[in-house]
Amino acid sequence: MKKDDRKRQSQPDKPFHQSQESLFTWSSGFSNFSGLVNLGFLLLSIGGFRLLLENFIKYGIRIDPIQWYIALTGHNYGEGQGEGFPSLTLILYTLVAIFICFMVEKGLSVKRHAEKIGMLIHAINLVVFILVPVVIMNIHGHNFSIISASIMCFGYSNTFMKLWSYIHVNMWCRHDTLKSGMKTQNSSDNINEVNGNKKDHHTEFLVKYPQNLHLKDLFYFLCAPTLCYELNFPRKHEIRKQFLLKRTLEVIIGVNVVLALVQQWMIPSVQNSLIPFSNMDLPHTTERLLKLAVPNHLVWLCFFYLTFHSFLNLLGEITQFADRNFYSDWWNADCINTFWRCWNIPVHRWCVRHVYVPIITMGFSQSTASNVVFFVSAIFHEYLVSIPLRIFKIWAFMGMMAQIPLARLSNHVKERFGPRWGNIIVWSSLIIGQPLAIMMYYHDYIVTYYREI
Amino acid sequence: MKKDDRKRQSQPDKPFHQSQESLFTWSSGFSNFSGLVNLGFLLLSIGGFRLLLENFIKYGIRIDPIQWYIALTGHNYGEGQGEGFPSLTLILYTLVAIFICFMVEKGLSVKRHAEKIGMLIHAINLVVFILVPVVIMNIHGHNFSIISASIMCFGYSNTFMKLWSYIHVNMWCRHDTLKSGMKTQNSSDNINEVNGNKKDHHTEFLVKYPQNLHLKDLFYFLCAPTLCYELNFPRKHEIRKQFLLKRTLEVIIGVNVVLALVQQWMIPSVQNSLIPFSNMDLPHTTERLLKLAVPNHLVWLCFFYLTFHSFLNLLGEITQFADRNFYSDWWNADCINTFWRCWNIPVHRWCVRHVYVPIITMGFSQSTASNVVFFVSAIFHEYLVSIPLRIFKIWAFMGMMAQIPLARLSNHVKERFGPRWGNIIVWSSLIIGQPLAIMMYYHDYIVTYYREI
Repeated sequence: MKKDDRKRQSQPDKPFHQSQESLFTWSSGFSNFSGLVNLGFLLLSIGGFRLLLENFIKYGIRIDPIQWYIALTGHNYGEGQGEGFPSLTLILYTLVAIFICFMVEKGLSVKRHAEKIGMLIHAINLVVFILVPVVIMNIHGHNFSIISASIMCFGYSNTFMKLWSYIHVNMWCRHDTLKSGMKTQNSSDNINEVNGNKKDHHTEFLVKYPQNLHLKDLFYFLCAPTLCYELNFPRKHEIRKQFLLKRTLEVIIGVNVVLALVQQWMIPSVQNSLIPFSNMDLPHTTERLLKLAVPNHLVWLCFFYLTFHSFLNLLGEITQFADRNFYSDWWNADCINTFWRCWNIPVHRWCVRHVYVPIITMGFSQSTASNVVFFVSAIFHEYLVSIPLRIFKIWAFMGMMAQIPLARLSNHVKERFGPRWGNIIVWSSLIIGQPLAIMMYYHDYIVTYYREI
Repeated sequence: MKKDDRKRQSQPDKPFHQSQESLFTWSSGFSNFSGLVNLGFLLLSIGGFRLLLENFIKYGIRIDPIQWYIALTGHNYGEGQGEGFPSLTLILYTLVAIFICFMVEKGLSVKRHAEKIGMLIHAINLVVFILVPVVIMNIHGHNFSIISASIMCFGYSNTFMKLWSYIHVNMWCRHDTLKSGMKTQNSSDNINEVNGNKKDHHTEFLVKYPQNLHLKDLFYFLCAPTLCYELNFPRKHEIRKQFLLKRTLEVIIGVNVVLALVQQWMIPSVQNSLIPFSNMDLPHTTERLLKLAVPNHLVWLCFFYLTFHSFLNLLGEITQFADRNFYSDWWNADCINTFWRCWNIPVHRWCVRHVYVPIITMGFSQSTASNVVFFVSAIFHEYLVSIPLRIFKIWAFMGMMAQIPLARLSNHVKERFGPRWGNIIVWSSLIIGQPLAIMMYYHDYIVTYYREI
């Protein structure tokens, strides 16, 4: 064929047709479709811009910072306003619980009371601590807006986990001192020979138990952007002023953008979904769900960046805390488990160090430990949703527990169709799962408090 | 710092924090965001599915193949139906023009009439040919639906370009025979020495002028999927039955999908755009334009695949035509010129071979030749739009001529911001330009034929 082609070239009719296949025909071997990625993102931007325009045409400008102030402070909410300042009570009670915890640790370190009694007091203190917001919010419920109640519950969960870690780590240190004390008695020569020089060198600059038991150290830990206590955190020697300024601006501007998006775009979508959702009208509900999915996902991505990058780095810079591993590359996660391991590193580390590993050490299997972690996580999710809304459904709990079979599914998909499809399952569960949960809770909230739709 | 970390590792508080930066901080050096591409396409699919659902909720099912039949045949259109069968007249006239062209070429080859007279007859024949649909459609306009009129105009343009190429190539061959005849007289020995053996070997299997002047050869060219004539097309030795079947199914199914998309999704969008467009209401018009952009682009992509891959390959397989280079990778084009060079190879080749190169040979500059090509192309675009719609605006012409400054812009963008942004300009002009043109023509069509909105 090629020989023929060459013959033809010299003819006077200026031939140029050649024997060849079209690019879309498999045998052409062509595979460069990189321009289609640009098309995808362009269509996405155009679609987003159109939705924004449609929204403004339909609803006008709904952004109103005064409403944000009301939502954040609970000011103007209900009639019970001003009765007993429940927010202040909650904040002050945190200090009480922290102080009790500290005193017990201090007592344990000098063996003022037995280990078992100390641990019992810790347990009671922590259980009471986590239940206080439940009680206060059910008594003075109308004094809290949903947002301020959420912030309170979040702060309480946060402090609860930090205190748990503090108690756990100090216990390890006591046990170690006990063991090494016994070891020193048994074979002091041996240890000195092997570890002696090294140990001296090590311990030179490091705080050792019980030197760490100071209120200053505890409060540093409570302010630091981590949930896991240790005696010697890696520290930075200076505060980068430009970095601090950038993160601060991000937090301030970002929070405003998120609030504007929620008020302008999400709230109308959620409200419009109520009737079809209540009537179990499947096509309309699906349409509403998918319409809500876009602003919700956008808000969630902004929220992720603001919280895990801007805010935690801001906190880290102020406290000169050097470990900024607050999130891993969950956007590339090819199965649900990887996503949960990556997206919230502080909580993940806490779960591994203070739940997963201790359970493994007790002799249970890895899958049991993993399921327990999901169970604990599900309880916290339920806590963070039910208490502020004062609706005791178990949907947040169930949503979290549903991650276990979903993880199996995503693993199966990944093995069967490759990591790209695993990644798509992860994204789908994020994009669809969240607005579904929001619609369910909004529906129940309206039914519970207004009785009619 | 690392030394400190190592020291800390051996402490009893099981430390694991390390000094490190967050992934989004530049100094972390992290850059793997491939998962976001999956997110992009997922959001796009979800958005597309929601639009589809919204469409069905709003309009119900509007797909009605009987309407397609009416639109294609023009049956049921107007009152003049049946008067003189103008479609048949148009189809038969094509044969007349082809026959005149062939007879003139035959006469020229045996020098029955002078070159100049032959060319004059050709010119008159071609001009009359391209004007016949204009006249017929203005007299019998109501007998044609817009679609059947478009198909007629397309067929006429197509045949016009093929005949032009046929005349041009045969002219080259005549001139070459003349020249080589003169050369042979001057230095026959020389040529025999140098090219003798080769030439004999070459010409063994090749058709040479004027052997090609047979009606069979001309009709093969008119059926083959190319606009450029040559004496010896590369041919395939067999028809791949499976390939033929696939392409045939693609054409049949694809045409139905496109018609369904147009009827269900595009037509309501176009109709809804009329009032805001007429009132010059910018936000509403923009919203409508962007809403129309999605189905329009989808239809255009389907149309591209169906025409340039399925249909032309089907034609190529039937005619055993081996050159299947009907389109290049325009989706990766990083400037407007590259796009026009790539997306329609048959027309591009025709323009280069029969317009661009001859102009360069005449001694004009490349940019002049390029502008002339755009000018010719603009005239054909105007022809293909104005005649079927019977609205003589110059918007298709202007749209095509606007490609010249747009090409400069895209080149500038490409040089300034890199090829990715050039590619985005190309896609944007496709996505936005087409629905804008559709809205403008629809508006004028309604104003012209219904006088009110």
